[in-house]
Amino acid sequence: MTLRIAEIFGPTIQGEGALIGEPTVFVRAGGCDYRCSWCDSLHAVDSAFRHTWTPMQAADVWQQVLDLSGDRPLTVSISGGNPAIQDFAPVIALGQTAGYRFACETQGSIAKPWFAELNTLVLSPKPPSSGETVDWDAFDACLAAAGEAPEVVLKIVIFDETDYDWAKEVADRYAQLPLYLQPGNPEVDPEIPVETQDTLDRLLWLVDKTTAEGWFTPRILPQLHVLLWGNKRGV
Amino acid sequence: MTLRIAEIFGPTIQGEGALIGEPTVFVRAGGCDYRCSWCDSLHAVDSAFRHTWTPMQAADVWQQVLDLSGDRPLTVSISGGNPAIQDFAPVIALGQTAGYRFACETQGSIAKPWFAELNTLVLSPKPPSSGETVDWDAFDACLAAAGEAPEVVLKIVIFDETDYDWAKEVADRYAQLPLYLQPGNPEVDPEIPVETQDTLDRLLWLVDKTTAEGWFTPRILPQLHVLLWGNKRGV
Repeated sequence: MTLRIAEIFGPTIQGEGALIGEPTVFVRAGGCDYRCSWCDSLHAVDSAFRHTWTPMQAADVWQQVLDLSGDRPLTVSISGGNPAIQDFAPVIALGQTAGYRFACETQGSIAKPWFAELNTLVLSPKPPSSGETVDWDAFDACLAAAGEAPEVVLKIVIFDETDYDWAKEVADRYAQLPLYLQPGNPEVDPEIPVETQDTLDRLLWLVDKTTAEGWFTPRILPQLHVLLWGNKRGV
Repeated sequence: MTLRIAEIFGPTIQGEGALIGEPTVFVRAGGCDYRCSWCDSLHAVDSAFRHTWTPMQAADVWQQVLDLSGDRPLTVSISGGNPAIQDFAPVIALGQTAGYRFACETQGSIAKPWFAELNTLVLSPKPPSSGETVDWDAFDACLAAAGEAPEVVLKIVIFDETDYDWAKEVADRYAQLPLYLQPGNPEVDPEIPVETQDTLDRLLWLVDKTTAEGWFTPRILPQLHVLLWGNKRGV
């Protein structure tokens, strides 16, 4: 079966969430069932970019990961777009045989059996500021598909107070899952430099807000890649 | 028994290592058996500051953590100085009864039975640039004291190529332990502002170096608190 791949890049470090700092090769799938207002990966989401997505066989995807990593096992992050549109089971099978670990980042709108093969499943339900509405039945189906084998974590992007209040509700609903919050990045144009201090100020706002009100459930993290590379692609 | 405490502060987030982003109250012990050349906590290390350390009973330490956290359980990080000079077992016992989690940061030069009571033990052996020499027998005794109960992780600060090569040897020696690297911060004077871009450039150097040579064992992280607050104390 042919996969539509927006980009494969690395090794770099994972910039956010539970695996922050982890050496990673990213496999970014093309195509998404969402269209978040602040999407930072439109080149993998908007079908206007579809002509830039490469049709690849699983073996070709895997060979490119091997080449980039010099055959040295590391973590492969399957992201997008929404990678759950496609079947990554063959890529995961090839990689795990070679000792690689697999993480997947998805909003949790489509469940796939291959979630159970992952080492880490990062579910990032999209908050109100995205303009999307979470289908919690579909989200629960993702949890069920993952089962007990992978580490499953929640990651929520916070742009404003409404997102923040919503995240608390989600945290209550899924109290068993580790929760990571990160401030949203409104500066997503790769042509416009990101202001480092603005990025840090947004993190500070979120840290101050959670600690001031004694909400100690989530871990609060930045998007390290934005601090290091702005919106540059391929890092 | 009386503890010598340099400061108790928070809640804030843990700025580095395995628990980065985790809401935390810090209990910083006064006194250290090391004197690293680039120490960023001299106020808790140098005995010239001894008159600023508060003699406290375990119950008083614990009450202050409760007050700061509004009785809401979170992670308490016991740091220093070298907290392993003193007996934190009574503080840990009080806190765990109340549902708090405990982490300890130590260089691994002194083993204590209470390491086994921790949730997370962060051992940060000091690299050559520190001017200190690691006693590996003492370090192994720390591992033995911790046993199987806590999560035990390694954190190594990297200032230069010599530190980097040394970290690789340590990683080989303790291949079973998760390893976190962070660039050193040479700007430790609380009166002098930290240059954010310099801090990010040092992180970038370390990310580029590890990924370029395919050393995928360690996770690479910044000191988030330095990015957010420079060398300000109490955050």
